[in-house]
Amino acid sequence: MGESRIITIALVGAGSVATHLGLALKNAGYKVEYVLNRGAERGTVLAEKLEARYVTGFDQLVKPDLMIIAVSDDAIPVMARQLGLCTFPVVHTSGTIAKEVLSVTGPDYGVFYPLQSFSPDKEVDFLKVPICIDASNTALIQRLEDVARSLSQTVCLIDDSKRKILHLAAVFACNFSNYLYGIAHDLLAENDIPFELLLPLIQETAMKVQVRSAFDAQTGPAKRGDVSTIRQHLDMIQNDPKLLKIYKTFTDNILKTYSHQFSTSDIHPEEE
Amino acid sequence: MGESRIITIALVGAGSVATHLGLALKNAGYKVEYVLNRGAERGTVLAEKLEARYVTGFDQLVKPDLMIIAVSDDAIPVMARQLGLCTFPVVHTSGTIAKEVLSVTGPDYGVFYPLQSFSPDKEVDFLKVPICIDASNTALIQRLEDVARSLSQTVCLIDDSKRKILHLAAVFACNFSNYLYGIAHDLLAENDIPFELLLPLIQETAMKVQVRSAFDAQTGPAKRGDVSTIRQHLDMIQNDPKLLKIYKTFTDNILKTYSHQFSTSDIHPEEE
Repeated sequence: MGESRIITIALVGAGSVATHLGLALKNAGYKVEYVLNRGAERGTVLAEKLEARYVTGFDQLVKPDLMIIAVSDDAIPVMARQLGLCTFPVVHTSGTIAKEVLSVTGPDYGVFYPLQSFSPDKEVDFLKVPICIDASNTALIQRLEDVARSLSQTVCLIDDSKRKILHLAAVFACNFSNYLYGIAHDLLAENDIPFELLLPLIQETAMKVQVRSAFDAQTGPAKRGDVSTIRQHLDMIQNDPKLLKIYKTFTDNILKTYSHQFSTSDIHPEEE
Repeated sequence: MGESRIITIALVGAGSVATHLGLALKNAGYKVEYVLNRGAERGTVLAEKLEARYVTGFDQLVKPDLMIIAVSDDAIPVMARQLGLCTFPVVHTSGTIAKEVLSVTGPDYGVFYPLQSFSPDKEVDFLKVPICIDASNTALIQRLEDVARSLSQTVCLIDDSKRKILHLAAVFACNFSNYLYGIAHDLLAENDIPFELLLPLIQETAMKVQVRSAFDAQTGPAKRGDVSTIRQHLDMIQNDPKLLKIYKTFTDNILKTYSHQFSTSDIHPEEE
C-alpha cells in the first residue's frame, strides 16, 4: 500500500517554492489536485497555473498520494498541527525544520527540500536544482526519491542534521557572499563607478568553484601575501569600521590559510 | 603622429593575462609582433600561438605601435626601468599599480586593465570582459579606447584612484566570496555532504545581482530576523572561533541593514 507510485499531490502554500515546485511537478506529469493557501489571490493564481482546485482548509481535500507543505518555516508546525492525523504522507520543503515536526500527521512524513533560491518572477531549470529528501521510513524515502528523480538530475538523501549543515553552509556561501556584493556595490556607487564592471568577475568566481576547489581558486592580495596592496586597502577603508573588520577578518584568515607569516595587525597595529 | 591607429603590438609577459589578451588582440586583427618574456618555455609557446617573435630583451624590438606590459604587479616597475625612455606608448594591465610608474618610458603611457580572473586552462569570452583604460593624455586615451572597443562590449575610462577602488571592491566581492565558498566546502566535507549540492545556489546568487540590487537580493535568516535559526547556527559552530567571528560579523551587519532590533550578542552573550 505504502509502495504505490505517487501521482496526485496536494500543495500547501502559494509562494515561490510552491509555485516553482508545483510547475515542475505538473511538467513532469504529476497531478497537483489542490492548492491550499490562506491568501485567496495567490492561491487561485497558482491553482489556475497548475489546473488544480483552490481550497482554504484541509477539510476540503480528498486524500492525495502526497501532501507537500511549502510554506515559511514558522508556519510549518502550525500547518502540521492543523492538519493533524491523516492517512497520506506529508512532507515539507524547508532546509532547517526537522522532519519530526510532521510526526503529528501520522507515520509517513518526510522532507522534500529543493536547494535553490527561487524568485517569483524568474524561471528555474528544475533539472539543475538539487533535491534533498528524507522520510520517516524507507518505503516513503523510495517513493520520494522517484518523484525527485523525475524532477531533478541531483537527488540526495540528507537527514535532519546534515540538512542543517547544508543550510548553514548555504548561509556562508550565498547569503554572506550576497552581502559582500552589496559592500562592493556601495563602494563603487560612492565613487561613481558602475557596478556592472564587476559582474563578469563575480560570475566567474562563482563558476570557478565548479571546476576547482575554493582553495585552488583563491586569488587576490591576501593569497599572494602582497603587503603593499593590503596596506593600501587598509588605508582606503581606515575610517569605516564595518569594512575594516570584514577586510581584516578575511585577509587574516586567507594569509593564514596560505602560510604567510604576518597579519593585518602587523600592518595597521593601531586597530583592534 | 600620436593619433594613428594602433596595429602592431609588443607584449611583455606570457602568463594568463598576456595569453588571453594576446589571443583576443590577434583575433581582433591586431598584429602581436613580439612576445618578450624571461622564461623561454612559456614565451615561445605564447609567441607561437600569436605568430609573434619571441624575444628576451627590449633591444631586440623594432618600435611597435603599443607595448603592453602584462606581468605581475611587482615586476611592472622593474620592466619600466629596464625599458627606459622609448618612442612608443606603453601600458600595463594591473588593477593596482599607478599609471605614473610607466612615466619613465616617456610621455605616452597608460593602463589597459581587463577586469577578469583569467585561468591558464580556461577559455574566456573577451567580449564580456570589461576593460578599464587610462592614459597620460587624451590622444592616447582615444587610441586605447579604440583597441579596447574592438575587444570588449564594456570599456570604461577609470583613473588610478577609481581603479584602486574597483580593485578593492573586487577583493570584497570575489576574493572574500571565494573564501566563503571554501568555508562551505569544508563544513560539508567534514560531514560527508557533497559540495556539488551547493553549486547551483552559489551560481544563482551570483547571477541574481545582475538583475536586482544586492540589497533586494539578500535572503537568509539574518535578513528575516529569524532568531531561532540564527541561534541554531551559533550552537552548531560554537567551538569554531573562526566561523563564529565571520558568522556574527555578517549576521549583525545584515540584521542592522534590515532594521532588526537585536544582534548575535543578545543570542550568544558569552562571546566577544
